[in-house]
Amino acid sequence: MTVSKQAIPPKRLIHLAEGKFSLRNSKMTTGVLRYGYHTNLAVIDSTQAGKTAEQVIGFGGAVPVVASLKEALAFKPEAMLIGITPAGGQLPDYMRAAILEAIDAGLDVYAGLHDFMEEDPEISAAAKAKGVKLWDIRRPGKKLPVGGGLARWSKSYISLMVGSDCAIGKMTVALEVDRCAKKQGIKTEFIATGQCGIAIAGWGSPIDAIPGDFMAGCVERDVMSVDGNADMILVEGQGSLLHPGFSSVTLALLHGSIPHSIILNHQLTRKEISNIKDVPIPSLTQVIQPYLDLASPFRRPHLVGVSLNTSGTSEEEARAAIAAAERELGVPATDPIRFGPDKLVAALADHKKRIGM
Amino acid sequence: MTVSKQAIPPKRLIHLAEGKFSLRNSKMTTGVLRYGYHTNLAVIDSTQAGKTAEQVIGFGGAVPVVASLKEALAFKPEAMLIGITPAGGQLPDYMRAAILEAIDAGLDVYAGLHDFMEEDPEISAAAKAKGVKLWDIRRPGKKLPVGGGLARWSKSYISLMVGSDCAIGKMTVALEVDRCAKKQGIKTEFIATGQCGIAIAGWGSPIDAIPGDFMAGCVERDVMSVDGNADMILVEGQGSLLHPGFSSVTLALLHGSIPHSIILNHQLTRKEISNIKDVPIPSLTQVIQPYLDLASPFRRPHLVGVSLNTSGTSEEEARAAIAAAERELGVPATDPIRFGPDKLVAALADHKKRIGM
Repeated sequence: MTVSKQAIPPKRLIHLAEGKFSLRNSKMTTGVLRYGYHTNLAVIDSTQAGKTAEQVIGFGGAVPVVASLKEALAFKPEAMLIGITPAGGQLPDYMRAAILEAIDAGLDVYAGLHDFMEEDPEISAAAKAKGVKLWDIRRPGKKLPVGGGLARWSKSYISLMVGSDCAIGKMTVALEVDRCAKKQGIKTEFIATGQCGIAIAGWGSPIDAIPGDFMAGCVERDVMSVDGNADMILVEGQGSLLHPGFSSVTLALLHGSIPHSIILNHQLTRKEISNIKDVPIPSLTQVIQPYLDLASPFRRPHLVGVSLNTSGTSEEEARAAIAAAERELGVPATDPIRFGPDKLVAALADHKKRIGM
Repeated sequence: MTVSKQAIPPKRLIHLAEGKFSLRNSKMTTGVLRYGYHTNLAVIDSTQAGKTAEQVIGFGGAVPVVASLKEALAFKPEAMLIGITPAGGQLPDYMRAAILEAIDAGLDVYAGLHDFMEEDPEISAAAKAKGVKLWDIRRPGKKLPVGGGLARWSKSYISLMVGSDCAIGKMTVALEVDRCAKKQGIKTEFIATGQCGIAIAGWGSPIDAIPGDFMAGCVERDVMSVDGNADMILVEGQGSLLHPGFSSVTLALLHGSIPHSIILNHQLTRKEISNIKDVPIPSLTQVIQPYLDLASPFRRPHLVGVSLNTSGTSEEEARAAIAAAERELGVPATDPIRFGPDKLVAALADHKKRIGM
């Protein structure tokens, strides 16, 4: 557990990941198994029943994979997390049926879909009748704030994860740094900005689901709600300023959090912007420039380190790429999963001290 | 009327602008009076009843200002537009009452509020009972698309209005250029991206009300829906890359439309970013740079002209500022309201020709 502030209390949790329990296809479940603060009892995926989580995804220990909700109920859960996000975020029929079954068994249900359970008349009526809680992680609240550049006045040091593309591990890096820093006695706060991060942290704002006028404002509100109560705020990154579909979410994070520093994330094997044909990712120096420029009117952030996702490369290739990134950008680089996040934590602590915070 | 493609047919229209009919406070009504394609019958504002629109806002001709909905009904309207946007976009009680009264009189109702009429049980039930149409201009549709950089392949020439700040006239410039170009026989299409623009054009996407994941995708869809059926696409701008609250909306327009050219909008008397204390607007050269850089991976836009909003300055000051902007940026500049948009239309046509489109 890496979380110090959560709106959802820890629960005895089961995960619905039917047919899709894997590192790639069940990001919510793998994230919560790895970094969450709930007690994980079982993962439902009939295609892999009988294995442990560790056997399927390489972590999660002895948490069993079971064939059905009925089997999972034997562990006396209090809540069920929908661990997979269907393409487009809409609710498939089999998932509706499973949600209704879980409600009927008295469980709270957590989901990060674009279709909200609370807006489904049958599901919301069933939850009301049973007195269980539905948590639509991606549902923006009411009374959303407009951003006003207030994070400039934060009393806590703020660092934002940015990246050369989507889905390269920005959340993971923030959580690894968070956990490592806490072990060193640094009081950190992880600010979740997407549904996986929120499921892990128990609070945060689903920026990609928030209307444009309020995206930056929600990040700002979350950052400033911590203000002063942490030494270091680590803001989960989203998308990339280079991705035409998601760049606006990325910029909302930059202008909402107005960070003192940024950590650049890059996946070594990624050469083109994802799902955008024939648009190469430029050099890391070019990738970083617009982040620095766009934040400058408020506070020019300092690039403190590079996190390289080296999966799919040999250790020799990984070490060579890390050395090359350090030479190119003049800051520490590492793959925090492969070689540990200590270098990044040290770089953050050093910069924080250097600017007198 | 400057519009060639609209989803809402022209109607006999009255405007609700109670207590707030002015250039500053009734943007929806003033926009539709100036550029829309409906027949405007009357504006309701009891505090200015007896005047004409022209007397109150300087245009709109003989359209009368009346004291009540009851008086306005004498003109046999088919629809009522809520011409003012309350702070925060929520629906005040007096406005709810007026909407219900209009429905009861058999009128369609158009509104650009963040609170949707369709989600108000009483209003939606009343509309259904009367068989009238509610148009929530700011309501995002279902099945929203994710942006994929597709506007790169547009067969039409695309120009985007950008600016140094919010609310300085980006929509007005696009509409002035649109009207002037059409008079010269250029087949243009105005792409509305905000509630005023949509009320004027009869179609478009309310980008500031669309969830982050889909903002750029909606602009892209709208631009590509025109593709090839216009010589020139003029995309209404929103916000500014410099405004921390609204920059994400701005970037969605840039990455959704991937323009061939941009027109920079600036208000001469504006020295600081609006509502952001002590953050000066930098030089125009600095303002323009991030727009060019961020679009570059897809298509580097060409700055074709500068539109200066010189309101509040003498003609001499205005002409000097225009000359200074032309010297600084090396492109034509004008105030299209004060001196006409012809220079900008010529600059667009020239650039279009130069790049062989």
